[in-house]
Amino acid sequence: MRFDEAYSGNVFIKSKPSYKESQAVIYGMPMDWTVSYRPGSRFGPTRIREVSIGLEEYSPYLDRDLDDVNYFDAGDIPLPFGNPQKSIEVIEDYIDQLMADGKFPLGMGGEHLVSWPVMKAVAKKYTDLAIIHFDAHTDLREEYEGEPLSHSTPIRKIAEHIGPKNVYSFGIRSGMKEEFEWAKENGMHISKFEVLEPLKEILPTLAGRPVYVTIDIDVLDPAHAPGTGTVDAGGITSRELLGAIHAIAGSEVNVVGGDLVEVAPIYDPSEQTANTASKLMREMLLGWVK
Amino acid sequence: MRFDEAYSGNVFIKSKPSYKESQAVIYGMPMDWTVSYRPGSRFGPTRIREVSIGLEEYSPYLDRDLDDVNYFDAGDIPLPFGNPQKSIEVIEDYIDQLMADGKFPLGMGGEHLVSWPVMKAVAKKYTDLAIIHFDAHTDLREEYEGEPLSHSTPIRKIAEHIGPKNVYSFGIRSGMKEEFEWAKENGMHISKFEVLEPLKEILPTLAGRPVYVTIDIDVLDPAHAPGTGTVDAGGITSRELLGAIHAIAGSEVNVVGGDLVEVAPIYDPSEQTANTASKLMREMLLGWVK
Amino acid sequence: MRFDEAYSGNVFIKSKPSYKESQAVIYGMPMDWTVSYRPGSRFGPTRIREVSIGLEEYSPYLDRDLDDVNYFDAGDIPLPFGNPQKSIEVIEDYIDQLMADGKFPLGMGGEHLVSWPVMKAVAKKYTDLAIIHFDAHTDLREEYEGEPLSHSTPIRKIAEHIGPKNVYSFGIRSGMKEEFEWAKENGMHISKFEVLEPLKEILPTLAGRPVYVTIDIDVLDPAHAPGTGTVDAGGITSRELLGAIHAIAGSEVNVVGGDLVEVAPIYDPSEQTANTASKLMREMLLGWVK
Amino acid sequence: MRFDEAYSGNVFIKSKPSYKESQAVIYGMPMDWTVSYRPGSRFGPTRIREVSIGLEEYSPYLDRDLDDVNYFDAGDIPLPFGNPQKSIEVIEDYIDQLMADGKFPLGMGGEHLVSWPVMKAVAKKYTDLAIIHFDAHTDLREEYEGEPLSHSTPIRKIAEHIGPKNVYSFGIRSGMKEEFEWAKENGMHISKFEVLEPLKEILPTLAGRPVYVTIDIDVLDPAHAPGTGTVDAGGITSRELLGAIHAIAGSEVNVVGGDLVEVAPIYDPSEQTANTASKLMREMLLGWVK
Amino acid sequence: MRFDEAYSGNVFIKSKPSYKESQAVIYGMPMDWTVSYRPGSRFGPTRIREVSIGLEEYSPYLDRDLDDVNYFDAGDIPLPFGNPQKSIEVIEDYIDQLMADGKFPLGMGGEHLVSWPVMKAVAKKYTDLAIIHFDAHTDLREEYEGEPLSHSTPIRKIAEHIGPKNVYSFGIRSGMKEEFEWAKENGMHISKFEVLEPLKEILPTLAGRPVYVTIDIDVLDPAHAPGTGTVDAGGITSRELLGAIHAIAGSEVNVVGGDLVEVAPIYDPSEQTANTASKLMREMLLGWVK
Amino acid sequence: MRFDEAYSGNVFIKSKPSYKESQAVIYGMPMDWTVSYRPGSRFGPTRIREVSIGLEEYSPYLDRDLDDVNYFDAGDIPLPFGNPQKSIEVIEDYIDQLMADGKFPLGMGGEHLVSWPVMKAVAKKYTDLAIIHFDAHTDLREEYEGEPLSHSTPIRKIAEHIGPKNVYSFGIRSGMKEEFEWAKENGMHISKFEVLEPLKEILPTLAGRPVYVTIDIDVLDPAHAPGTGTVDAGGITSRELLGAIHAIAGSEVNVVGGDLVEVAPIYDPSEQTANTASKLMREMLLGWVK
Repeated sequence: MRFDEAYSGNVFIKSKPSYKESQAVIYGMPMDWTVSYRPGSRFGPTRIREVSIGLEEYSPYLDRDLDDVNYFDAGDIPLPFGNPQKSIEVIEDYIDQLMADGKFPLGMGGEHLVSWPVMKAVAKKYTDLAIIHFDAHTDLREEYEGEPLSHSTPIRKIAEHIGPKNVYSFGIRSGMKEEFEWAKENGMHISKFEVLEPLKEILPTLAGRPVYVTIDIDVLDPAHAPGTGTVDAGGITSRELLGAIHAIAGSEVNVVGGDLVEVAPIYDPSEQTANTASKLMREMLLGWVK
Repeated sequence: MRFDEAYSGNVFIKSKPSYKESQAVIYGMPMDWTVSYRPGSRFGPTRIREVSIGLEEYSPYLDRDLDDVNYFDAGDIPLPFGNPQKSIEVIEDYIDQLMADGKFPLGMGGEHLVSWPVMKAVAKKYTDLAIIHFDAHTDLREEYEGEPLSHSTPIRKIAEHIGPKNVYSFGIRSGMKEEFEWAKENGMHISKFEVLEPLKEILPTLAGRPVYVTIDIDVLDPAHAPGTGTVDAGGITSRELLGAIHAIAGSEVNVVGGDLVEVAPIYDPSEQTANTASKLMREMLLGWVK
Repeated sequence: MRFDEAYSGNVFIKSKPSYKESQAVIYGMPMDWTVSYRPGSRFGPTRIREVSIGLEEYSPYLDRDLDDVNYFDAGDIPLPFGNPQKSIEVIEDYIDQLMADGKFPLGMGGEHLVSWPVMKAVAKKYTDLAIIHFDAHTDLREEYEGEPLSHSTPIRKIAEHIGPKNVYSFGIRSGMKEEFEWAKENGMHISKFEVLEPLKEILPTLAGRPVYVTIDIDVLDPAHAPGTGTVDAGGITSRELLGAIHAIAGSEVNVVGGDLVEVAPIYDPSEQTANTASKLMREMLLGWVK
Repeated sequence: MRFDEAYSGNVFIKSKPSYKESQAVIYGMPMDWTVSYRPGSRFGPTRIREVSIGLEEYSPYLDRDLDDVNYFDAGDIPLPFGNPQKSIEVIEDYIDQLMADGKFPLGMGGEHLVSWPVMKAVAKKYTDLAIIHFDAHTDLREEYEGEPLSHSTPIRKIAEHIGPKNVYSFGIRSGMKEEFEWAKENGMHISKFEVLEPLKEILPTLAGRPVYVTIDIDVLDPAHAPGTGTVDAGGITSRELLGAIHAIAGSEVNVVGGDLVEVAPIYDPSEQTANTASKLMREMLLGWVK
Repeated sequence: MRFDEAYSGNVFIKSKPSYKESQAVIYGMPMDWTVSYRPGSRFGPTRIREVSIGLEEYSPYLDRDLDDVNYFDAGDIPLPFGNPQKSIEVIEDYIDQLMADGKFPLGMGGEHLVSWPVMKAVAKKYTDLAIIHFDAHTDLREEYEGEPLSHSTPIRKIAEHIGPKNVYSFGIRSGMKEEFEWAKENGMHISKFEVLEPLKEILPTLAGRPVYVTIDIDVLDPAHAPGTGTVDAGGITSRELLGAIHAIAGSEVNVVGGDLVEVAPIYDPSEQTANTASKLMREMLLGWVK
Repeated sequence: MRFDEAYSGNVFIKSKPSYKESQAVIYGMPMDWTVSYRPGSRFGPTRIREVSIGLEEYSPYLDRDLDDVNYFDAGDIPLPFGNPQKSIEVIEDYIDQLMADGKFPLGMGGEHLVSWPVMKAVAKKYTDLAIIHFDAHTDLREEYEGEPLSHSTPIRKIAEHIGPKNVYSFGIRSGMKEEFEWAKENGMHISKFEVLEPLKEILPTLAGRPVYVTIDIDVLDPAHAPGTGTVDAGGITSRELLGAIHAIAGSEVNVVGGDLVEVAPIYDPSEQTANTASKLMREMLLGWVK
């Protein structure tokens, strides 16, 4: 019994006991304070961990077991409520430390804005970083109703930071006209509606490069992920998203971090979305942490 | 502030302020009193409006924005509770007025029976009218347990009114044997199970003709629309239904009105069905009102 | 059929057709952007209207019928999303107009902060105004995490504006120690835990005075109002709250306006909270608008 | 194994195997077709049976065990869908048979209209019958929107049939002014709002008389019974209703039948209403069948 | 009225009145006591029957009507709570009797372990029996946490009983590495992830053989069957599962029994899973009972 | 940032950072494997922590703040799934350690059986221990269907261990006749139905004695705690239970530990039960840890 040490309770299934010895670190970012429509993703990380006990530990897709990866669930990053600016600073500091310690960061949101400071921190270490982005929404706004820190802006921020031509979005089916135009004019890749086929075309062009992958659960159709703030009909199946994770795992790219965001349990009475998210996390761990 | 004029509250997002200047009129038909299994669609129109605030206003499918269409949400038609006969008369009068004013009618149900008086009114103006019908059910009964005004009868009524060969049903996967036989014997088109492929074959044959499109949300699989009275497994995806709306938009037919019926919020705890319905309404507006 | 005039759909049951001729005006204030725990009250007014169709129109408590009161449901006040400062200005302007037109304002929230600009506007007309406040929470903070415009502050604001000794809170069972102390030091009345008995003692002391009554639905126990953001065990029954409304109705005070706030439908799967709210609204109309 | 005989599955817990030898018969009346607001009680009897397996068989209130009563759950009465006239005829015939066989009828609704033919059949045998009625609503309408067979009319019908002075209603908090007046003018007893105290006053006056007890679950506050069509705030607790059942059990009246109606599972996601109903059924069995 | 005979209430729609004259017998096996993650399937059979009243009786897939098959719903098998060993003995005895009487057994679970005694009993009569198995999970464990009677073991048991090469699993996407290896080493067929295509290849090889088909509802994607204990993303659609049932119906195999297990209503607030299950039952009846 | 030390995420609000320096320790016991009716309490502790962020930190009942108590949330005790015998051994060892370290144990269930090893461990240190027990159920069975380790047995076990006359149960409204008789014959105190009044009579007789308090959330009426496995109508209000906690806090007894068990989130869609449980935990901390 180690009361002062690693928490024994609500962690992702098969979390290993030591941060120091871990390859990958799982962490939650329970923030949803810039959400415009239906909030609730602040409760996502806790629920995903909770339902992970229902997971089988072995992946027949990848022929690998959770025992084969040394990862440590560090719990949620403590974020100052209602303060987006301070929250992203705290996240960036946290990821800086993970990077310094040589860890693979694997985060859970929270709203999509949390990915911005993570990607920024990762880009410090990997100067040739590319971003693969799965989402229903462009998230390319400069601001939302005057607010530059919004869940509608993270991809714009990282695109401006590392250059739009290093960002690849898939499955996009919602956004303002200006966002699509900005992407086009600036050489950023957007695959409208489609995911797996265009991804398979892009991956070889990224061979050998460091890649961070950010997944907004709403890239899935509402049938597959009702438990999210802004559901948008016409999305892909969980099977296709699993296929995308596996395609990346089987490619020549060097995945250096990833996240899964926007799971909102209150809209998920059957817990199907949280259960799907926990399976996606397992496949990301088994496929990307080598 | 115009207290006496158009309601400022629960209207479909971006409804324009003037009936007179509008091209299209949105209206609800909150009736479900002939439903045999699970009622509740009387609350559909209100919920679809409520969730429409979560919609993006631009359609990347059609490259068009809600600002580009002048439509007016006129609220719900006041219907006499529990009286189907009077209700359909009220609806018919209402649509007669819209037709006289040159408006494009875009209705929300309520049970499917509400489409019958709408189609009848539209057929007065467009004598060459054809009907495109998406549904899980044939809705071709002559009566249901002795009642000629039933949610199982609207397509039979319009088929007899304008001639069965002018009615085209898609996605049908439920009905009595007699209904399928009646359709076959009378030259009415029924695509069992399938929607998009047969639709693409039919559309060129309707080029130039006025067409009214009636969509029962249960043409979608229960995975995509759990919030409806009579779910029926084996349906199509929301992606395919969006594709059907876009195929019509891109064809040579002259859409002169449409509706979306049978959304029942009580069976939709995550509100995914209402959100999907509001997106379908947006695409119908942007694709069909020109 | 009056397409350009008053909305015929989702209004509170038996809303009369004319603003001009009305004694009382019902309006929604769909704002929840300063909520710290569970948001969702932005959707309250719409749902309360929706379920009001299930109400009996006659009150056996008051022996009065909704036909006996001339009230107009004006819909929701259009509020600028995510901007509390601007929102409260819009609300204040709106109520100024109602006051100028001699209307009895009866509002539905939204979060409790919306009551602040309403009370401020009412206090312009009635310089001797007193406030009766039913709530689980003190709402007496000066600020919340640095933000002076918060759902934790409206009673503090009005108390400072009209003088703390003119404010009477009942049913309070949650707050910071400093809030209770501030009230005590400044002569503001707080009945901890209890509602009906202390109210009956206070009412005679307010005889003849203009009174505004603000009801946070969470004064009810979670058993009676699960559908609100911050449920707090140990509250009163709906029967006691009805009793409080009737006690005010039967007293010598001059009720000049009121509101009911914090109904959040997403936490109310059986719709019991919305139904209870609509009954409370009926009793407020029948008891207070004379 | 007796495949052709009594159903072994979804029956009320501890149902005995033989109709012939039973003292009491439980039956469902799955009808809700005249409901004006929220339907769904057609699914009540099935759900009450389903959850009855969670009941303890012994009552510490009455010091009696379900093994001490010989009752037979006969399943649901097959009712012709959508036909109220025929349905009540079928029910009346069914109860006539039970009466002829000397059984104690204990029914489960379904909407309240089903109680009318039951009470009528019981009154044939017991000419001095009195009715004890627990409900939120008067149910004294002559008709509802022109329909004499409505869930708003059963108490009026039985009152006219056996004489209004033989009917005693308790807990009433909703109705039209005309209904309350009719009761008053015709000598029918109505206790507004209250149940237990007035019941205790009435019971001695009914000593020795045959009494049928009809319970609409909505006499309970929505906190205690959210799962019903027309919830109405301000009701009594389940504790008080249990007290009323026990008061009747301990009195000198001769209970000759009873029912519990209006449980609607779709509004009862936690199944609390169905569980409460099954406990009420147990106490009715143990307290009234002697 | 036959009070002592077949139950008239909660049976699968169109159940015929006589066991003796029936071809097929429907029965429930309400057991879930070895479930490791989320229990609740003990309530599955009752709910499937309840919602079956929403089914159309005719299948446009098979051009056959429920009136064309003589089946008897015998209710649930009474199982000793919490005792897996005794429960499977009771089930085996029950099926032995059905086999002796020449009935087609069509069961509803309950957890998947219930299929083991059924298959064992069927194999007594049909010595050349083959098993077709649809599931997300291998169910090939020898034991689960030391318990040989577990919902993770039924396929292993029947495979060892009739020989692994006679067992064909489809749609498998979850299991331990050891389970997949055991299947491979012992010549048992497993189609990972896929269902319809490999099934169509296997069916001709089974022509003329007696086949028992066991369907775990979780072979469906969580989008199509959220109401089950262990949802697992990446599954097939209800359309594909219907296709599999029809492929078997149209093949040369001799279906001699079947079951559908693991429907858990508490995770199914919209009742979509139960409705889908009842449609699958209809197609199994119409396609396999000849 | 202390990645290897105390978990920063899902802990009870205001948990202090050090086990060593803490007065009280909070821990979860996520076990529900002996539950007979509706399982799910294994997920209780996680949800109570999750919602505790909505709590006010100050108690106006006790005039004390969470900052005034030094408590450490140690997470959940890792329990071997499906093995009641081993689980209770693990819990007993865990509490032995807390006792050795001089901590006040404050546990969260899980099913009620988890209280047995806790009480046993506490009784080792306090030989004059008395038990105060709030529950709907006696929990006095010797065994349940042959199983001595059942959620129906913990109070019997501790009563036999420390002597029945040292055990005081309140609010009991369900049990077998034999259980009530055993209590009576053995001098154990049971207050049927009532809580606060009899408690106030008993407390003075326990002045100065060490007391452990175990609360089954189902002592509350289903209206106040729908989210539990076995709801039972006729219970007390949350207000009365708060009163009982405060009565103990204000008495002369020496509270040496306590627990709150049987919260089951799946039956609690509005999260009211979890929120109430977190408030009860706050009052237990503030009232009992001195």
